[in-house]
Amino acid sequence: MTRQYAEAGVDLEGAEAAKARIGQAVATTLTPLSVGRVGAFGGMVRIPEGMRRPTLVLSTDGVGTKVLVALEARRFDTVGEDLVNHSVNDILVHGATPIAFMDYIAGSQMSVDQIADLVEGIARGCRAHRMALAGGETAQMPGLYRSGTYDLAGTIVGVVEEDAAIHGDTIRPGDHLLAYASTGLHTNGYTLARRIVFDRMGLRIDDRLGDLDRSVADVLLDVHRSYFRSVMPVITQVHGLAHITGGGISGNLVRILPEGCEAVVDPTSWDPPRLFTTLQQAGGISIEEMRAVFNLGVGLIAVLPPQAVPAAQAAAAADGVATWTMGEIRPGGQTVRFARP
Amino acid sequence: MTRQYAEAGVDLEGAEAAKARIGQAVATTLTPLSVGRVGAFGGMVRIPEGMRRPTLVLSTDGVGTKVLVALEARRFDTVGEDLVNHSVNDILVHGATPIAFMDYIAGSQMSVDQIADLVEGIARGCRAHRMALAGGETAQMPGLYRSGTYDLAGTIVGVVEEDAAIHGDTIRPGDHLLAYASTGLHTNGYTLARRIVFDRMGLRIDDRLGDLDRSVADVLLDVHRSYFRSVMPVITQVHGLAHITGGGISGNLVRILPEGCEAVVDPTSWDPPRLFTTLQQAGGISIEEMRAVFNLGVGLIAVLPPQAVPAAQAAAAADGVATWTMGEIRPGGQTVRFARP
Repeated sequence: MTRQYAEAGVDLEGAEAAKARIGQAVATTLTPLSVGRVGAFGGMVRIPEGMRRPTLVLSTDGVGTKVLVALEARRFDTVGEDLVNHSVNDILVHGATPIAFMDYIAGSQMSVDQIADLVEGIARGCRAHRMALAGGETAQMPGLYRSGTYDLAGTIVGVVEEDAAIHGDTIRPGDHLLAYASTGLHTNGYTLARRIVFDRMGLRIDDRLGDLDRSVADVLLDVHRSYFRSVMPVITQVHGLAHITGGGISGNLVRILPEGCEAVVDPTSWDPPRLFTTLQQAGGISIEEMRAVFNLGVGLIAVLPPQAVPAAQAAAAADGVATWTMGEIRPGGQTVRFARP
Repeated sequence: MTRQYAEAGVDLEGAEAAKARIGQAVATTLTPLSVGRVGAFGGMVRIPEGMRRPTLVLSTDGVGTKVLVALEARRFDTVGEDLVNHSVNDILVHGATPIAFMDYIAGSQMSVDQIADLVEGIARGCRAHRMALAGGETAQMPGLYRSGTYDLAGTIVGVVEEDAAIHGDTIRPGDHLLAYASTGLHTNGYTLARRIVFDRMGLRIDDRLGDLDRSVADVLLDVHRSYFRSVMPVITQVHGLAHITGGGISGNLVRILPEGCEAVVDPTSWDPPRLFTTLQQAGGISIEEMRAVFNLGVGLIAVLPPQAVPAAQAAAAADGVATWTMGEIRPGGQTVRFARP
């Protein structure tokens, strides 16, 4: 409920409509767990009742240079949703259900309307997960930020029963790797993608992106997908989950592998979406760099026993998310290997 | 335990010593509530056992343009501690005990050594409060941040029994206002203070500040005081607590006043520290603006019944913090008034 405006401050005078929008957006995220009142120093949220050993899962993150694309496109709400969904996935991989979110918006010469757009996007992401936007901080600091730019970060608070938390330690040889389709770049690889699209290809934000039938803005601002509804129905059958962010498939999947386990990814099991092949060709990027930077169409990987795969796929399909078996766990040494079966 | 480095990334190669310092700093903050392992996607911390209705108190904040003073002084650890202590106070006012902290460090052309200094300062603040540094994000984004600058934000997670949470609703006429001495500007008013010190007074960072016998750097980087140990021993006797940040005494005290209550502050009950009179004289600042921007020597105000004042003062004295009765609550309309008794 708290929303502070820092000293070097946002000029809120004469922006009553935008202020009202911010207040309304925040109010729509109140949940039965919310406590306290607007204007409090800290936001409050109850731990759900009936838990035996409630454990918090916490993550702080930003959306990186995707904000620069949003600035160029003058579109401020989608990155707010990106931030929330990215954070939801980061704690979902431990089995946690989100209960609260806090944002930090800082920049130089932001208008209150832009801030309201950002907060509305954040609130939309929170509502979709029945999570309270429990607070936030907004600061204008011209001495730090380049004129007209802003940065966006957030912290998510989720909760899980301690003995139900997923750490990857139950992963074993024979488990399958189930890929969940991403919606695009999600929030990673924007420094390289921007260099290719704007510098190498010489495109502007409203141009059509290569042979994709959509504009650069639309493609690059596709919202980071939340896998909460796809995965939660089968969470108890999952041995491990990797959110594919910076570092790509290998860099993230390796983080959850226990000793004695190697992940073998079959690169022929899917065709990366056209966006990725367009970037690769236009940028002259090696397959190794593509794999290290981009998600290549895979937003999340679940590691689970073969017999659990059909239910997991059905749950994802019911949420509108495509999935496929992309490989398996074999005996080996905590590495990820791309290999045809 | 998580510490992510964003894509546009911090170059960690060739900085093994600094990396090790970061890892060691984070490891020193592990508490009995910590769960999980390094490299996890989200940090984990248990809710303390034996609580009936555990309620989280959350706050996200930055340190504002104090970072610009730290940059000028090439001193990176103290603002980390500022960030933690500021956050501790923001949830202490609701009666909460901190259990976890997450930081967000973003900038342009930071060295890993500077990041390590920042994280060490944050970890020092966390250790002092037996709170886990449960995660953090570090991002280098030259497109957003002016060259060589960085911003620093953090989120604190504390816990309180729901029926013990302090909201100010038990404040009543006759209660006393107990002032807790600040250590200086804390983290507010730096835009105005920098203008006065560097522009009006023409001082440089290592010059002596006016007739104070200390350098500009030393005075302006005095660490924001945490009142946790001063207040916690008497927390059950407190009716309300206001952390004096941006907006000064009036702007923050008014936030906790219930209907029917006015706070009357006796400005003759203390002499603002010399730093504030120096800034006022050098800047030609009106008393009204001084009161609206600076804490004037008061970092926290406790509202409590007269009979609880001696114990509160004894607890603060045991923690080395000066206190004095600075006014009282009278029947009135949710305002703060400066008036001689």
